[in-house]
Amino acid sequence: MTLQGTVYGVGLGPGDPDLMSVRADRLVRGGRHIAFFRKAGRAGQARSIVNGMLRKDATEFAMEYPVTTEIPLSDPRYNSILSEFYEDCCAHIRALCAAGEDVVVLCEGDPFFYGSFMHLYTRLRHDVPVQVVPAITGMSAAWTATSEPVTWGDDVLTVLMGTLPEAELTRHMREADALVVMKLGRNVPKVRAALAAAGKLDRAWLVEYASMDRQAVLPLAQADDRVSPYFSIVVVHGQGRRP
Amino acid sequence: MTLQGTVYGVGLGPGDPDLMSVRADRLVRGGRHIAFFRKAGRAGQARSIVNGMLRKDATEFAMEYPVTTEIPLSDPRYNSILSEFYEDCCAHIRALCAAGEDVVVLCEGDPFFYGSFMHLYTRLRHDVPVQVVPAITGMSAAWTATSEPVTWGDDVLTVLMGTLPEAELTRHMREADALVVMKLGRNVPKVRAALAAAGKLDRAWLVEYASMDRQAVLPLAQADDRVSPYFSIVVVHGQGRRP
Repeated sequence: MTLQGTVYGVGLGPGDPDLMSVRADRLVRGGRHIAFFRKAGRAGQARSIVNGMLRKDATEFAMEYPVTTEIPLSDPRYNSILSEFYEDCCAHIRALCAAGEDVVVLCEGDPFFYGSFMHLYTRLRHDVPVQVVPAITGMSAAWTATSEPVTWGDDVLTVLMGTLPEAELTRHMREADALVVMKLGRNVPKVRAALAAAGKLDRAWLVEYASMDRQAVLPLAQADDRVSPYFSIVVVHGQGRRP
Repeated sequence: MTLQGTVYGVGLGPGDPDLMSVRADRLVRGGRHIAFFRKAGRAGQARSIVNGMLRKDATEFAMEYPVTTEIPLSDPRYNSILSEFYEDCCAHIRALCAAGEDVVVLCEGDPFFYGSFMHLYTRLRHDVPVQVVPAITGMSAAWTATSEPVTWGDDVLTVLMGTLPEAELTRHMREADALVVMKLGRNVPKVRAALAAAGKLDRAWLVEYASMDRQAVLPLAQADDRVSPYFSIVVVHGQGRRP
C-alpha cells in the first residue's frame, strides 16, 4: 500500500526570494511536484519568484484561471466557473497524493491572508494531509519599503481591499489609526477619493512591487493618473505613543 | 579611515527558527555583534529563538528594560525612563558602528509592526545606515495555527491591542469582518467582554505560542480564568465570498 502524499501550501512572501522562510526555501528546492496559479499567457508571479530554484526533474502544474476580470464579480457565472476550476485543480492534486506524491503549491504572500490557495485548501483538507507554511505578507514588505514603522503603541490597524465601495472605504478609513489598502489597480482613483474624504490622503504612500527590483514608493497624492499594478499597496502610518 | 558599520533590524518571525527568512538566517548566523531586548532576569524571547545559531565569537549586547509593568503607562516617568534607556542603547550601538562594526538587532515578529526596534530605529536612522528585514508576523502564525484562512474576498481585517479601553475595542470589533487582538495577558477578560458585546465571542480563537512547541489553540469562550501569555493572539475569521 502506498502512503498518501501531503499537500504543502507554501507562502513565498512578497517577491524577493531572500525573504522566503527557511522552511519554504527547503520545500521549494526539494519539491518533485510544483503547482501554482497564473493568468493564462503569463509566467505567473508565484512561479517567477522561484525561478532557478526548482529541481531539474520537478514536474510543474500550472493552474490557469479561466477568468480574471472578463466577468464582473456580481455575475452569477463568476462563482460557478471558478468553483469548477478549483474542483479540477483539486482532482489533479488528489490523484498525485493518492499515488504517494507530495505536492508543493506555490502561494504569493501568506497563504491564509487573502490568498487563492484557500480555495484549494477548503476542498482538499478533508481528503488529504495539508500543511500550510505562513509567510511574510506583501503589506509587511510595503511598510518596510516606506522606511517608517506602520504601528506604534495602541494604534489600530485596518486592512481594506480597494474593491470595496467608496463610502465603505471612507467609513473604515476614518476609524483606523494605521491603514493598508490592497487590490488597487483600477481602484486607485476611488481609494484616493476615500482617503481624501477621511482626511488621510496627505499621509498615504503608494508602494509598487514591494521588495522587488522594481520597487517604487511615492506619495499617493502625487500618483496622478498612474496605472498601478493590482498588487500595489497603500500604506498610512499610525501616529501612536512613542517614548 | 574606518568605514562606518550598518545596523540590521532583523525580524525573526513568530518563534519557530524554521520560519525565519533566508536573509534573517544568514544575518543572524554571520553576525559578530548581536543586540536584543529582554526583561531583566529573563533569557529574552528574541535571543531564545536564535539559540544555537550564533557564531562562537559573537559578542552579545542584552538591552534590559528598566521597567515593564511596574509603572503604569499613564505615569509621566514611564516615557522619560524608557526614552533614556533607548538613548543609552543607541549610544552603544552608534559606538560600534563608528568603529566599523555591523550590529544585528534581533526583533521578535516584524520590526515595523508594533516592535520595540522602532524606538532604536527612529533614533539611529539619521546617524547610521540602518537596514530592516521584514518577517512573518505573530498574527500570521496565529491564524495559520487555527487551520482556517483569516480573510476572504473583500473582508475587512482590523488589528487591535488588548490594552485599549473596552468600549473602543467593542466599537472596532463591530465594524470589522476579521479581527486580530494582540497584547493580551491580563487583558483577556476585557477582550472577551468586548467581543461578546460585539456579537463575535463565539467565533473567537485564542492562540498561545503560535508556531512554537507549546502552541495551543482554543475557543476564547472556553478560556475561563486562563492566565494567557502577553504574546497570545486572538483571531476571529472573516466570512467573505468564497467560490
